[in-house]
Amino acid sequence: MTSINVEKYKLSDKTAKLTAKDIIPCVQSSDSAETREFLHKIAELLVDYVNVQNDRKEKILDFHHPEDMKKLLSLEIPEDAVTLQQLVKDCAMTLKYQVKTGHPHFFNQLSCGLDVVSMAGEWLTATANTNMFTYEIAPVFILMETVVLTKMRKIIGWDGGDSILAPGGSISNLYAFLAARHKMFPNYKEHGARAVPGELVMFTSDQCHYSVKSCAAVCGLGTDNCVMVPSDEHGRIIPAELERLILERKARGHIPFFVNATAGTTVLGAFDPINTIADICQKYNCWFHVDAAWGGGLLLSNKYRHPRFTGIERCDSITWNPHKLMGALLQCSSIHFKEDGLLISCNQMSAEYLFMTDKLYDISYDTGDKVIQCGRHNDIFKLWLQWRSKGTEGFAKHMDQLMELAEYEVKRIRQQSDKFYLIMEPECVNVSFWYIPKRLRGVPHDAKKEQELGKICPIIKSRMMQSGTLMVGYQPDDRRPNFFRSIISSIAVTEADVDFMLNEIDRLGQDL
Amino acid sequence: MTSINVEKYKLSDKTAKLTAKDIIPCVQSSDSAETREFLHKIAELLVDYVNVQNDRKEKILDFHHPEDMKKLLSLEIPEDAVTLQQLVKDCAMTLKYQVKTGHPHFFNQLSCGLDVVSMAGEWLTATANTNMFTYEIAPVFILMETVVLTKMRKIIGWDGGDSILAPGGSISNLYAFLAARHKMFPNYKEHGARAVPGELVMFTSDQCHYSVKSCAAVCGLGTDNCVMVPSDEHGRIIPAELERLILERKARGHIPFFVNATAGTTVLGAFDPINTIADICQKYNCWFHVDAAWGGGLLLSNKYRHPRFTGIERCDSITWNPHKLMGALLQCSSIHFKEDGLLISCNQMSAEYLFMTDKLYDISYDTGDKVIQCGRHNDIFKLWLQWRSKGTEGFAKHMDQLMELAEYEVKRIRQQSDKFYLIMEPECVNVSFWYIPKRLRGVPHDAKKEQELGKICPIIKSRMMQSGTLMVGYQPDDRRPNFFRSIISSIAVTEADVDFMLNEIDRLGQDL
Repeated sequence: MTSINVEKYKLSDKTAKLTAKDIIPCVQSSDSAETREFLHKIAELLVDYVNVQNDRKEKILDFHHPEDMKKLLSLEIPEDAVTLQQLVKDCAMTLKYQVKTGHPHFFNQLSCGLDVVSMAGEWLTATANTNMFTYEIAPVFILMETVVLTKMRKIIGWDGGDSILAPGGSISNLYAFLAARHKMFPNYKEHGARAVPGELVMFTSDQCHYSVKSCAAVCGLGTDNCVMVPSDEHGRIIPAELERLILERKARGHIPFFVNATAGTTVLGAFDPINTIADICQKYNCWFHVDAAWGGGLLLSNKYRHPRFTGIERCDSITWNPHKLMGALLQCSSIHFKEDGLLISCNQMSAEYLFMTDKLYDISYDTGDKVIQCGRHNDIFKLWLQWRSKGTEGFAKHMDQLMELAEYEVKRIRQQSDKFYLIMEPECVNVSFWYIPKRLRGVPHDAKKEQELGKICPIIKSRMMQSGTLMVGYQPDDRRPNFFRSIISSIAVTEADVDFMLNEIDRLGQDL
Repeated sequence: MTSINVEKYKLSDKTAKLTAKDIIPCVQSSDSAETREFLHKIAELLVDYVNVQNDRKEKILDFHHPEDMKKLLSLEIPEDAVTLQQLVKDCAMTLKYQVKTGHPHFFNQLSCGLDVVSMAGEWLTATANTNMFTYEIAPVFILMETVVLTKMRKIIGWDGGDSILAPGGSISNLYAFLAARHKMFPNYKEHGARAVPGELVMFTSDQCHYSVKSCAAVCGLGTDNCVMVPSDEHGRIIPAELERLILERKARGHIPFFVNATAGTTVLGAFDPINTIADICQKYNCWFHVDAAWGGGLLLSNKYRHPRFTGIERCDSITWNPHKLMGALLQCSSIHFKEDGLLISCNQMSAEYLFMTDKLYDISYDTGDKVIQCGRHNDIFKLWLQWRSKGTEGFAKHMDQLMELAEYEVKRIRQQSDKFYLIMEPECVNVSFWYIPKRLRGVPHDAKKEQELGKICPIIKSRMMQSGTLMVGYQPDDRRPNFFRSIISSIAVTEADVDFMLNEIDRLGQDL
């Protein structure tokens, strides 16, 4: 197997010249050979890509600057139809230049490998092309959603409650915010800010995902009223600071009502102390939301669940993205509530023209009226199929494997302390470190050296993108200049791949 | 070709017994025969489904009540992995019981056929499994998004501006609302309601999609401050009423700031008069948003664009869903702004750890910081590929074909006025009508008869679901009891299918 060959995927002479109007659904055929040929050719290309991507000798990407890439590809929309053969070529060309996010040497953030079963599920989802709206049009998928979300709530530690799948963690966090506001101030939905006798204030750590602050902007509190609580050196919220800031706002006549804890912060992978925050929320009558978009998968692991999630059943809502650690295909994000009935009471706009009560079947299965979307993508099938393919036991092992690999990486970094500087013991699969080029080895570690180490991150990153051999992210944070943050969230990764990553960074950066 | 046979899709004896841990990415293979076999078997099933779905002799659905369906399917998540053979069977079973939303006799709302090219695009999207976040990880897709959205803005009538793809029309409308508030009250993002000297008020017709009202709830105005303007008997907003209500709110010291016009209302398919509303918005300094989620496709048609969209270039923002009339796979919704720069200034939360400015490439291509999502599904590829498969000319013809079929339906209903009562001349592909059973034929049409006609809609709907031959929606509105609303939005539909629909309703309902 070699890289994607754009010219390989040839349709028969007859089919090659056809266009979309010659295949289903434009032709009234109940069995169209040309449609079959076209789709099987696409499948052949995709199956090749899945294999190529898994080949460690293959590059992850073939980097070109945007202006050059535009010239390589022919992206314009023509006036007239292109042929089926051209469409197949378009697909091959697209994959040739796309970043292979499922490659075993992809340690960047934002992709978590390519689970082939979840992918097969997403192919089916596309083919079924339905809307998660009513039992009427999505009977099987609506039932699957019920089964899987109920299971997830059980894993959280709740017997009842309610959940929904949302298009990403940011929207899931928004759902939590809205439900909290509605529960605590039921008139807000109708009356807006007039419904409350003062300014509503929310609290989160300075390490939280930016979508939490975004809620304050979107929902009209203003970002001023999203209080960023300081975190400790491990990136965990400082509970005493949270309490101090709640009291400070109360003293100003404000109304603290919502606290977000993060279970797996974006950069450091830190876990805020759930039980301690739950106590504070209880004391000050605040809604307790946990953003476990990133870390949620570890709920499945007996080995790593505690102490990270100890007390999780005390929260009011939790965001948990199967498309992150669990490797379900993007998008697959879930939001869970301890109390049932809130989603519908918060979000329904009584669209009687869509949700009639004189239907044939038990309408309690219809979900359309409890979401802020109307059309909603089917995000459940790929997760359901993937979960069955592993079993709950297998999913737990999958989580353990990722964490154990992160532990292996930490060990290897420690063993090569001349070349690498571990910034902290990680709590999740994020490993933060600096690479030390030859000229800085042996130089005492201080703030000045950190500045130097920070400067070389973008250079190494740029070299790795141009060589195409590796993808690892870097960023600064409040305490440090740029540092590398490798993410092990793909089941394809092995110990040898971790060693490859460290060696490759050394190869690319030792002269800097 | 007959219906999906769950037992047909047999893997080889060896592969059948394997589980997910025996295929890519769990096995370190650069070319796994078992992975290939599994995926090609899934593709075979999906290609069969595409053909079966297009067979007019096939049922659209095999209806079972939720409790019965649960027994037919085995939905539970096991502790241990199921085999690859079982996964294939799971997929076949799912498709067997799923509603065939692309069947040529599906005239229900919320599905618009199955465009096979768009579907192939979505298969590729799944396989590429990336995040529309930065050029770094999605170079090809990010460039495609730029090309297609720029083209859509040109079609709207704008040379500049900015756009984004969002997970559905409701979120697109939310984007418009947020940008409007930010443009007119730049301090709102930070200070919330304190930034304005009075209550913000938005206006929309009583026929609008409920997501517009939902913006008022989500964003903290309160639904009280979403004024529902009366519509005329065709479902179009009454401009004089809009102006009267703006003045009424101004007199109360409120701040009218946002007007939504609907281009293609959900139930009647009505188009609000754009130019007249633009004049009013100009006069009262309101942001002018057009929700063309449903009707937007007609912008492509020379024949039907005017007068429906005359003046559209005057609006400030427009929602336009390719996953509706244009038949792109769900989800594919776009929101366009006349002014560039608003999306980023409104939505960015300055997450420096994600959007560093010391990158290798021109970061102006990164989209992550201008959306309220963080992870964002790739919704562009399926639309880009589909558009190339038709050409802009072909897409225009596609729109014309849908509208001409709706006109044919209207003609056939008029020709059978003993059996059908046309409620109004439609402006879009929604055709609203009552069916008249034998006992009511010849009875003068009055309010009492309408009540009778309304009562039989759910009965016919229930019969059609149980017979599985047809799907057509019904609902009441402010002026009428239940009536049928057929939607012709699938390119698979022909005149013969329209006749089938009317005849089948007659067959199912004549004894009522």
